[in-house]
Amino acid sequence: MNTLVTHTLTAIETPAAIIDVGRMQNNIARMQDRMTMLGVKFRPHVKTAKCIEVAQLQKDAGATGITVSTLKEAEQFFAAGFTDILYAVCIAPNKLPQAAALIAKGCSLKVLVDSIDAARAVATYGQANTVKFEVWIEIDTDGHRSGVKPDSDTLILIGRELANSSTSATLGGVMTHAGGSYALNTPESLAAMAEQERSRCVRAAVRLRDAGLACPNVSVGSTPTALSATALDGVTEVRAGVYVFFDLVMANVGVCSIEDVALSVLTTVIGHQADKGWVIVDAGWMAMSRDRGTQSQSVDYGYGQVCDLQGNPIEGYCLSGANQEHGIMSKSGGQNNDPNFHIVKIFPVGMQFLVLPNHACATGAQFPAYQARNFDGSIETWPRFYGW
Amino acid sequence: MNTLVTHTLTAIETPAAIIDVGRMQNNIARMQDRMTMLGVKFRPHVKTAKCIEVAQLQKDAGATGITVSTLKEAEQFFAAGFTDILYAVCIAPNKLPQAAALIAKGCSLKVLVDSIDAARAVATYGQANTVKFEVWIEIDTDGHRSGVKPDSDTLILIGRELANSSTSATLGGVMTHAGGSYALNTPESLAAMAEQERSRCVRAAVRLRDAGLACPNVSVGSTPTALSATALDGVTEVRAGVYVFFDLVMANVGVCSIEDVALSVLTTVIGHQADKGWVIVDAGWMAMSRDRGTQSQSVDYGYGQVCDLQGNPIEGYCLSGANQEHGIMSKSGGQNNDPNFHIVKIFPVGMQFLVLPNHACATGAQFPAYQARNFDGSIETWPRFYGW
Repeated sequence: MNTLVTHTLTAIETPAAIIDVGRMQNNIARMQDRMTMLGVKFRPHVKTAKCIEVAQLQKDAGATGITVSTLKEAEQFFAAGFTDILYAVCIAPNKLPQAAALIAKGCSLKVLVDSIDAARAVATYGQANTVKFEVWIEIDTDGHRSGVKPDSDTLILIGRELANSSTSATLGGVMTHAGGSYALNTPESLAAMAEQERSRCVRAAVRLRDAGLACPNVSVGSTPTALSATALDGVTEVRAGVYVFFDLVMANVGVCSIEDVALSVLTTVIGHQADKGWVIVDAGWMAMSRDRGTQSQSVDYGYGQVCDLQGNPIEGYCLSGANQEHGIMSKSGGQNNDPNFHIVKIFPVGMQFLVLPNHACATGAQFPAYQARNFDGSIETWPRFYGW
Repeated sequence: MNTLVTHTLTAIETPAAIIDVGRMQNNIARMQDRMTMLGVKFRPHVKTAKCIEVAQLQKDAGATGITVSTLKEAEQFFAAGFTDILYAVCIAPNKLPQAAALIAKGCSLKVLVDSIDAARAVATYGQANTVKFEVWIEIDTDGHRSGVKPDSDTLILIGRELANSSTSATLGGVMTHAGGSYALNTPESLAAMAEQERSRCVRAAVRLRDAGLACPNVSVGSTPTALSATALDGVTEVRAGVYVFFDLVMANVGVCSIEDVALSVLTTVIGHQADKGWVIVDAGWMAMSRDRGTQSQSVDYGYGQVCDLQGNPIEGYCLSGANQEHGIMSKSGGQNNDPNFHIVKIFPVGMQFLVLPNHACATGAQFPAYQARNFDGSIETWPRFYGW
């Protein structure tokens, strides 16, 4: 699907994280068009790429604000001109000074809570330090992680706690993430999960409003549900992250094809164990990450699907094993027994491949920078950051 | 086992990678004393910590040279004054200019090959660029990854290829890594693997010498075999990496106790799902890494063993699940049913823990720096590097 000149790849030190910009732009456009059609704002989760250049393309396509998973991300993106930021992890009290510092600089930062204790900690800190926090409440719509139940008393109590502290806190909305969608793999089950995510989050907003509490924002999303929802009544915005690159886990979930995966790891052959049908490459788990998300899915790709330098899968070849800086590339279902097939000659020392990852968020995190491969084959280095 | 003052931990932003310097110094001394007793040099593998301060303590204890897994490590450690460096991954031809640049600067860098093609690529590059490489040959002593068989014709052919290129290459020795030892867990099987690693690597050196080829160095090692070998006749040096921190995988292998693990992740409680017995903390897989090495071992610690701030395990509590920035802490074997046990009160929002990792090499890699906690409770920031 791409028409990139590939010879410039060979100048890159391996292993390297390669972004296929054409594929990524298609992924960005697909999601944004869908959100526009559904009549909601879109707030991409920038934790996947942690890269200003990627987020700028999402913004250019129409995204409204961003979602972050750490205050480091909030700081980095705010410094790059992104001001509307949802920190989508319930805030620990020890992070309030850092959040307050961002707000003081003019960042429209929204923080999250899912307990009365956390709401009180935010309000108390705000009062003591003369800062007003916009607080969103996390709703649990699928039982997979955090959040309060939409029908719980706690939901209303948190809302009242914030309303009672109106000088230091304001209720900005409710948000949920149906991460349970990652375990599904049929259009019907995904659509049902999307509707569950929507209806339960809207239910929470309605209950808050019925209790006399303003709840302007209703935010839902995960890549699988965002791409499976058919109506989003009552929702004001959707969030998704990994769609920007997609990965093998998402291909198994069924919301993209292998040909949509825009992040890969460039690797070089360093040796063989010919009797076992092994090609040893210089992308181990330090490059691919230890994420083996496809292990429990319909197709297990090991540590990654091997592709040629045009990004076309080499049928059956995966990284079947990985040490820190060694990957073992082999053919699933056993080695090729054709007497004319000599693995050392067909995949010689020095040959290069692209390896598609299980989980783009985890693989990207292993690299200080991406090599972004443009339509014309030119390659730009796009930094990414990490840590907290 | 330690007597550290802990209150200074609470000033650190979470999640954070904490080194217990006392435990680490014990681990360093234990290994070095053992190598001295066995009459061999010790060349620590610095890929575990990627930290100058840690390597300096290993050197101070008596280490001779270092082992690296990337040329980035070689460059960083050479810049910090480490000159005797074994790059213990077979070199890809595209990395030869980078290796040559280090040698030109005065680094005593040893590169590795396990094929005639790679040996030829090194020799050819050396001739064309007037650089002489010290080349070691990787020996496969346990079938787990790379290397040539000690009894293979290829071994001798590689040696001759190097000897025929004496202006650009010199054979420095043989090395092996019995990574298969990670799958063992009895003293007897570990001692047998150590002897297998030793005898097969020495066998390779003897065959090269019998063919008229000098082979001055015989290098073996992995943390489990280094700590299980009882005699190392014919070996000149041992390498090991993860022993410096140890981890839960090594505890399951049986070469350390939980109380020896010197790396942990400091985390803060951010919420609960009380009905499920879940405590939600701010260390997810981005902090712990996706490494689940204990999954296939005798004790599965999930994403990590939870400890108090003194580093004492809280019996039965592990990170049973992890998302990118969320960890789910729960009690193995089901939740506590004592009616007086209220998880929200016992582990309240804001409380902090240390979490011991499955695999120290993978967990350390998630952090830009370590927080090194000294005997007196003071904490220093020690940078670490990543990438290639």
